[in-house]
This record gives sequence, structure tokens and C-alpha cells, in this order.
Amino acid sequence: MRLAELSERTGVAVATLKYYRREELLHPGTTLSRTQADYDETHVERVRLVRALSEVGGLSLAKVAKVLEIITTSGQDWMAVLEAAQRTLAPEGAAIPDPTAATPGDGAPHTSRALAWVQSRGWQVDLQDPFIDELERAWQACDHAAIGLTPTSLDRYADHVEGIAQVDVDSVPADPEGAVRQVILGTVLIDPVLVALRRLAQQHVSVSRAQSS
Amino acid sequence: MRLAELSERTGVAVATLKYYRREELLHPGTTLSRTQADYDETHVERVRLVRALSEVGGLSLAKVAKVLEIITTSGQDWMAVLEAAQRTLAPEGAAIPDPTAATPGDGAPHTSRALAWVQSRGWQVDLQDPFIDELERAWQACDHAAIGLTPTSLDRYADHVEGIAQVDVDSVPADPEGAVRQVILGTVLIDPVLVALRRLAQQHVSVSRAQSS
Repeated sequence: MRLAELSERTGVAVATLKYYRREELLHPGTTLSRTQADYDETHVERVRLVRALSEVGGLSLAKVAKVLEIITTSGQDWMAVLEAAQRTLAPEGAAIPDPTAATPGDGAPHTSRALAWVQSRGWQVDLQDPFIDELERAWQACDHAAIGLTPTSLDRYADHVEGIAQVDVDSVPADPEGAVRQVILGTVLIDPVLVALRRLAQQHVSVSRAQSS
Repeated sequence: MRLAELSERTGVAVATLKYYRREELLHPGTTLSRTQADYDETHVERVRLVRALSEVGGLSLAKVAKVLEIITTSGQDWMAVLEAAQRTLAPEGAAIPDPTAATPGDGAPHTSRALAWVQSRGWQVDLQDPFIDELERAWQACDHAAIGLTPTSLDRYADHVEGIAQVDVDSVPADPEGAVRQVILGTVLIDPVLVALRRLAQQHVSVSRAQSS
């Protein structure tokens, strides 16, 4: 199919598709002439994947490009892929400045409450993992909003999140390429599913309790 | 304290603080002269809250302003506040166009798979709730990425998310103003906590299984 039909099939403007081509988010079609190329179903799928990751997953197009690079490179082992994915997908945000803290931001995160909590939980994770800093940052934000998040309430959340992670890991297929796709795309794209479920479940729990009281 | 000291205490630039004042994200200080005002601890707290919601919670400053309006207006009942919060915090994203669907986007969401799933789950929620559309949109994105999200795997996730919602609802204090704060701020600011926990728990579950196999 020509670019116009690819645009119609995917609902993405021709100009945007040309931009995806230039940025190598979309692989080349079969060259028909100096100005025309032929596209197929793999291109339709790729455009939908780019949109899913950027619009629903909230990734920048630069991060989408990195994710595509990881999932289209074969022959990697499971843990290496998981680590590459986490490095790519870790937010770049700096910690919220907290002038009341004994030590300023730089270098300090690894003596954080989050690290102490992860260790007390006994989770087998890399203690340099950027998501420990993310947890610290999110925890600080809760403090600044005067939301009482304690190690105990974090443990209660973690009990349920472990169940979610079990479902995540169960969903990973045995073949290596399928595994790579599932780990990376599932990590990004299941987040919005869980956010929507949490909002709906909060409503359900509130209504159920109001009825039984 | 003067604006310069407020800036030092919060780590937020003076120009940004002036912008917050103009946009009414920050309440006025006590006027000292035509060009000077005196700020106190309530201003420090407010600036930290604005940063927490925008930088960690990912809200636009326009949404932060709406959230502040809701939490500083007293005398609202629990369900009304929850509804106002959900309306305010619902993402405005349009559904990903899916030209293969029998009916185009507009009006169609409420005959969606997500709605059917919510009904089969028996959740007591408003069937017009925007998060049902959000769930549909997130589910479509999973399809486009060829991640197999089925009603059964959604049920497995929902079992654990219900537990999270129980913790959320348990955290809500009895006094109405505290409840308003907790519902709105907790909804936004616990999301990043859960995202970080999920990444760490995935690692822990993967490592634990690799060791036991």
C-alpha cells in the first residue's frame, strides 16, 4: 500500500508518518520509485505500536525509538533485556529539593528511607536500581502533600503489587523474542491499565462499604 | 519571610514563584509595601504541594489549580469529592483510532469490551465513568502492541488492585477536610509509588523464580 493508505489504515497523518520514517521509528517500505514506496501489514503494526507507546504509555518519541531498538534486537538473555528496559524506561526526573534533609540530593538517595524499606522487605533487587530513587522521590512527594505514607502502609501496598508482578512474570512467553516484547511493552502499557483499574476499584470499594455500614 | 527566602526554602526559582502567584497556585502573602509581601510556612507547604503534583504526579499546572480549588473548598461530601476528583484527573486523551472497529470512536466506548468486563466483574461503578473509556483505550494499546491482555488476565490484575483500593480507602481520615485531601492527593501521588514498586517487585519475582528453578 502507498503512504496515503497507510495513513487511512492507522488514522495517523501522512506528515506524521513521514516524520516517523525520518526518525527511523518506521522501517523503510519497498522502494517503487525515487519518491514512492510500498508498505505492508508490518508497517501498520509498527505505526500502531508507536502510537500505543507514545499516546497511552506516555513515552517520548526518543524513548519509543530506544524501546523499538531493544525489542528488534534478538539474541539477548532475559535479565539483560529486563535491565536494558528498566534503564531506558526509568524517568529522568531529579529528586525534589528538600533543604531540610541532612544531606543534599546528590549521592544521597542510596542512604534513603526507600532503600532501607526495600532491604527490610527482603526484595532481591539491585540496590543501585534507579527505581529505588524513584520510590524515594514519590515518597517525598507524598510527604510534601501531607499524605501519611508509612513503611507499614507501603508494605500493605507491596503485598498486592507482588501479586501483580506474579501476573506480569506469568505473562512472559517462553520464546526469547516474545519474552523481550512482553517484558518491555507490558511494563509500559499495563501501567495505564492498572491506573484505570485502581480508580474503578476505589469507587467499587467505597460504594460497597457505604452499603454495608 | 520574603520571596527570596521562600525560594531558598523550597528550591524553586523566584521567577517561578512569581508565576505561581499570578496563576493563583500560591495564595497571597501579607502585603508589606506595594512591591513586597511576607510569606509563612503555609506558603512553603503550598509550593511543595504544587511541585509534588506537577513533577511527581505529572499533572499540568492547570490541573494542579483545579485540584487546589477542590481541596481548599470545604463542606463537600465524600462521594461528591471523589467524583469531582475523578472528573478533574481523568486524562483528556482521545481513543486510538481503530479503523477496523465496526463503529468509529464517538459514542462507541460504552459498548466496549471494557464495559462488558466491568459488568461481568460486578463492580459497583458509574457505567458512564471516564475511567471505563480509559481502560478500553489502554486495552486497545495492548492489542496494538500484541500484548495478550485477556478478560481472564484482567481479572487476575483486578484481584490485586482491589486490595490496593482497600488500602487507599482505609487511609482516608474521618474528618471531611482531611478526607478530601487524602482522596485527591493520594489518588495522584500514590500512582508513581505503585509504578516504582511494580518495577522492583518484577525484578524480585524474576530473580526468586530463577533461583528456585
